Amino acid sequence: MTPSLTLHPDRLFPAERATRDIARSLYEQVKDLPIISPHGHVPPAWIADDIPFSDPMSLFLSPDHYINRILHGQGVDLADLGVPPGRDDVTPEQAREAWRIFCTHWYLFRGTPMKYWMESQLVDVFGIGVRPSAETADQIYDEVAAKLATPEFRPRALMDRFDIAFMATTDDPCDDLRFHQQLAGDSSFHRQVRPTFRPDRYLESGRPDWVANVDRLAEVSGVATDTFSGWIAAMENRRAYFKANGAVSADHSHPDLGTQPLSRVDAERLYKQARTGKIGVEEAASLRRTMLFEMARMASEDGLVMTLHPAVFRDHHTETFERFGPDVGGDLPIAVECVRALRPLLNAFGTNPNFRLVVFTMDETAYGRELGPLAAFYPSMYVGVPWWFIDAPDSIKRFRRAVTEYGTFYKTSGFIDDTRAFLSIPARHDMSRRLDCVHLADLVAEHRLEMDEASEVAHSLVSDIPRHVFNVPA
Amino acid sequence: MTPSLTLHPDRLFPAERATRDIARSLYEQVKDLPIISPHGHVPPAWIADDIPFSDPMSLFLSPDHYINRILHGQGVDLADLGVPPGRDDVTPEQAREAWRIFCTHWYLFRGTPMKYWMESQLVDVFGIGVRPSAETADQIYDEVAAKLATPEFRPRALMDRFDIAFMATTDDPCDDLRFHQQLAGDSSFHRQVRPTFRPDRYLESGRPDWVANVDRLAEVSGVATDTFSGWIAAMENRRAYFKANGAVSADHSHPDLGTQPLSRVDAERLYKQARTGKIGVEEAASLRRTMLFEMARMASEDGLVMTLHPAVFRDHHTETFERFGPDVGGDLPIAVECVRALRPLLNAFGTNPNFRLVVFTMDETAYGRELGPLAAFYPSMYVGVPWWFIDAPDSIKRFRRAVTEYGTFYKTSGFIDDTRAFLSIPARHDMSRRLDCVHLADLVAEHRLEMDEASEVAHSLVSDIPRHVFNVPA
Amino acid sequence: MTPSLTLHPDRLFPAERATRDIARSLYEQVKDLPIISPHGHVPPAWIADDIPFSDPMSLFLSPDHYINRILHGQGVDLADLGVPPGRDDVTPEQAREAWRIFCTHWYLFRGTPMKYWMESQLVDVFGIGVRPSAETADQIYDEVAAKLATPEFRPRALMDRFDIAFMATTDDPCDDLRFHQQLAGDSSFHRQVRPTFRPDRYLESGRPDWVANVDRLAEVSGVATDTFSGWIAAMENRRAYFKANGAVSADHSHPDLGTQPLSRVDAERLYKQARTGKIGVEEAASLRRTMLFEMARMASEDGLVMTLHPAVFRDHHTETFERFGPDVGGDLPIAVECVRALRPLLNAFGTNPNFRLVVFTMDETAYGRELGPLAAFYPSMYVGVPWWFIDAPDSIKRFRRAVTEYGTFYKTSGFIDDTRAFLSIPARHDMSRRLDCVHLADLVAEHRLEMDEASEVAHSLVSDIPRHVFNVPA
Repeated sequence: MTPSLTLHPDRLFPAERATRDIARSLYEQVKDLPIISPHGHVPPAWIADDIPFSDPMSLFLSPDHYINRILHGQGVDLADLGVPPGRDDVTPEQAREAWRIFCTHWYLFRGTPMKYWMESQLVDVFGIGVRPSAETADQIYDEVAAKLATPEFRPRALMDRFDIAFMATTDDPCDDLRFHQQLAGDSSFHRQVRPTFRPDRYLESGRPDWVANVDRLAEVSGVATDTFSGWIAAMENRRAYFKANGAVSADHSHPDLGTQPLSRVDAERLYKQARTGKIGVEEAASLRRTMLFEMARMASEDGLVMTLHPAVFRDHHTETFERFGPDVGGDLPIAVECVRALRPLLNAFGTNPNFRLVVFTMDETAYGRELGPLAAFYPSMYVGVPWWFIDAPDSIKRFRRAVTEYGTFYKTSGFIDDTRAFLSIPARHDMSRRLDCVHLADLVAEHRLEMDEASEVAHSLVSDIPRHVFNVPA
Repeated sequence: MTPSLTLHPDRLFPAERATRDIARSLYEQVKDLPIISPHGHVPPAWIADDIPFSDPMSLFLSPDHYINRILHGQGVDLADLGVPPGRDDVTPEQAREAWRIFCTHWYLFRGTPMKYWMESQLVDVFGIGVRPSAETADQIYDEVAAKLATPEFRPRALMDRFDIAFMATTDDPCDDLRFHQQLAGDSSFHRQVRPTFRPDRYLESGRPDWVANVDRLAEVSGVATDTFSGWIAAMENRRAYFKANGAVSADHSHPDLGTQPLSRVDAERLYKQARTGKIGVEEAASLRRTMLFEMARMASEDGLVMTLHPAVFRDHHTETFERFGPDVGGDLPIAVECVRALRPLLNAFGTNPNFRLVVFTMDETAYGRELGPLAAFYPSMYVGVPWWFIDAPDSIKRFRRAVTEYGTFYKTSGFIDDTRAFLSIPARHDMSRRLDCVHLADLVAEHRLEMDEASEVAHSLVSDIPRHVFNVPA
Repeated sequence: MTPSLTLHPDRLFPAERATRDIARSLYEQVKDLPIISPHGHVPPAWIADDIPFSDPMSLFLSPDHYINRILHGQGVDLADLGVPPGRDDVTPEQAREAWRIFCTHWYLFRGTPMKYWMESQLVDVFGIGVRPSAETADQIYDEVAAKLATPEFRPRALMDRFDIAFMATTDDPCDDLRFHQQLAGDSSFHRQVRPTFRPDRYLESGRPDWVANVDRLAEVSGVATDTFSGWIAAMENRRAYFKANGAVSADHSHPDLGTQPLSRVDAERLYKQARTGKIGVEEAASLRRTMLFEMARMASEDGLVMTLHPAVFRDHHTETFERFGPDVGGDLPIAVECVRALRPLLNAFGTNPNFRLVVFTMDETAYGRELGPLAAFYPSMYVGVPWWFIDAPDSIKRFRRAVTEYGTFYKTSGFIDDTRAFLSIPARHDMSRRLDCVHLADLVAEHRLEMDEASEVAHSLVSDIPRHVFNVPA
């Protein structure tokens, strides 16, 4: 008999009855609130042009490096999963075969959040009722494919169905943001889709493509970038463009959190050296830290929220990177130091009422030891919720238990889904809501919080807090 | 309707019934045992002169950097909370207004230990029955202020009411300890208040005030401190003075745990250089590590227990430090390394029966990985219980779960409250007792420990262990 | 009245009833499966010659540095416990007295895994029914000693009784493996006992005995080791010998995980320098990392599974080391970095189908942050289960909660007992089975996994997974 697939209404709630009842009750109060998604990777074109999703492989597998890496770790060739995403050489039969591979390996995902998200999508979005397996792969493929062809499964219809009130995309500073402009000018569209300024590649002067990048920046901004001052002016120009087009934040992801600025003279000197295409690893890091400090200064002036996603070792496996490019599962978390690294930035802007900083981490040791205490003290700073490798039930529970006692609920960021997997957005937010309610239920059950207090916190975590932290317009 | 404020008898106990019943039963056995407080920051003058507390702001807010930092993180100006403590320019109306600010922000403390401690004090000590809020601020202020004016709320009466059998203060090596002498000579006073030798500022030769400090040390000790040998002799002199005045321990807080001693020649050379007021950062660190090693050597001879509170980054926000001075919320935990750093000290004194070392940490990763295993092996060493930023329910539970399996209950220090907030001492010890009973109850409920064993451990943690570790006189 | 000693059938299971019932049911399914022990330290001679155990001290105390260190930490002289193991100068009365010391200090082990293992052995293996104490020490000693003298308590009988299907020993590359040959040639012996190649001492060229070690290696292998190329050839020779004698893995334990190879020219140069007996600390580390890389290369060719047990600070207390030698309780875990350190090795062999790597850690922070994500991506890599100082209930639960979400159940190693304490092997595997079932039961109780899925995982963790990871022959 084929095992059925259902979603238990108490999923993620604790088994202990008194606590479960409290969690249920809190969750009832927040489960239907609109989704605020202030950081993610959905391409804006999908919404602007309401582009239909093509097939289960392109939807679920080829772009999802969470799933890819697990299958790769069992010896599956990424090419057989349609990686890199967007390839035009995948035949329908190959797409179906990729899905079969996934379903055959479904057991691997036991205990992982990928299982949770996929089950939620299959059941809640597509109405699938059978567990993925070699036997059910084709049936599920056909059912999903058939639904994807209907108008109800186009991005805008789903955005309504999911009740996504606000969604930020992630965009290159040189992007013309025409899809965002298209959406802004579309009187039939009533939800908010906003760009996010993501300038990483322009801050890493040791990258082989850096010179070309900053040349392009000059071209797009109309500001010469042959000096560091010019680079700053060009960045200010593009941030202003993003802000004018609705951006609320700028996101940064670098190997460390260093923000110690060089003197302007030294910065100009290193910048000039970098322009020659030859800069040492340490010099490039110093220059990048100076640039990041400047980004904070700009943020304190233009009011774009600054978010930091540090300490990822990118493209660990060279052969995979060379075959498939970035973002295909070869990125890895590393340890991060925050207190010393952020000091220059926080001394300069940490009490500036116009500045807001959200620091994420995948190094959980930083939550209670560094990020919670820092955010508790500095009015401008917030602790980002678990992200990427730690966006998962047990990690999220540890996060709340590490940060709340000395960082408080009110200096955390609200949930971000950080995903390109559009159809998983409701499941991701739902997981977060459930787990925050579980944490609060524990506090109530242990008589550390009254029910009315927990209720207010649950609501704030989903609504007021992300709206405030990310300056989400009403 | 104004929400009421009550303390649930089962607070901090788990919801699961069987475990809760065990926790209750264990807690019943230890909840009324006298308080041993071997490390804290209550000014001895308070007890010696039985000085009445003046008002709720001065009692609860201006000196409490746990609370300050949370309010500061929401944009409250520390000056509006009466910071720095001891200011004589705060009007009664400003004091009342500070309390209103606190009560208005009461929601911020949800899920924090500050809420637990404050509720315990308001209900248990002052009999307050309403939840702090903008509406209730004045009422609570008036009730607390009225009680503070009565004899029952003077320090000695409270010390009796709280049943604090032993309390250590923290004192500068140059202190004349006259309040301790006054207490020792007061035949009407039957509790123990002892000084603690805290020489940090004399070990940090890179501090701008270091030369003046060691000059003062020479003056007070009558021993010239123009050489490192002189410094050692002066320190021995003051330790002897402290010991003669009842001290049981010496406390040290530096950025790292390094204890590698320089050769005497090198130490004298660096000391001489430091005396000129110009010493490099690395040299100052080497000299300090040598001094710390010497402190351990002295401890092995005079028998004062050595406690280490390492790895705090002090005064992170320069502007706050310049406006308000130290200890106002700008200190932050950083990562700590123990195994290599403590090796010279432990090789020299770790099996010395006259030496006792207690190492605290706020870097929780060190508990299971380094401190537990070190303390388990070295007869002289103990793991300090969670302190400062991790003196909170979830952190304390993690501590026991990290340390017990390879560090054992019997190589932990017993609870220290480390506080200047005199009225919170019972609540802090009570939290610790409850949580230790919860940990033991888990072990019993999971059939890892028999009830009679748990009972003995619970009693030892509150009584025998701290008495033994800190040489508390009977 | 003497407290009795019993083993509760629900030990280690959670108190919450629904979860406990699930855990029980899962455990029932795996508790009687044969033991696979792919890494341990039982001397093969014990099995080959079926050597009877002599007395409780030699069995339980002198060789057990888990127990030794706890007693040492309370001031017990290791000599009084019969340390180092194998001494021939311990009188019967001294052996008995050591046991009395242990029983008198039995309370110290509350909350530790040593208590769990010892209770399991006393009750399950020896049928002891009284709790160890000063009063019961002699009685227990006599009962155990009496049983040890019977044929039922000889190693082979116990191996049958414990149902140990496969057991690996740990052996020096120069070992002639004659006990393994004896076992292989013994038609009366039907269980598998295999050697493990453990070449640490030949990779640490800074050790005082290194030159002598590699001389010996040359002698045994018949390959000159005066060059690095020769060293490689000699190692290949001995690995082939081990493989021919049934080895399935090679184990490595060094201070860090570095695998960056030097150029062959540089390696030869440093090797030559090391041969003179004088090599700097950094140079020795570089050479060792090169050697470790070579070991991985050999493993990818000969198919011996590579296991890494890094980041132990050995022989921390010099005086103890000088009196008693290594492995007597003076080793300590330190922090470990994995992502950068393993990159050269994983880039070279991480997707090689003939290569298998298992990385252990006692630095728990590495599980979720580095090891889980690495193993998830690289087909060749697995995360080793908790080992040594973290082979204990709370640590094991944290391990599963840290690794499963992004490392999956299927990229963990299966349990290894890593012990010389032969009689504790069943208790150690039983603890692991119980705790894995508890973790799975939590997932089922929280509706994150179906019962049939949990059941399959529970079975795989005990059987298929360790068999696959370690190439255990059927």
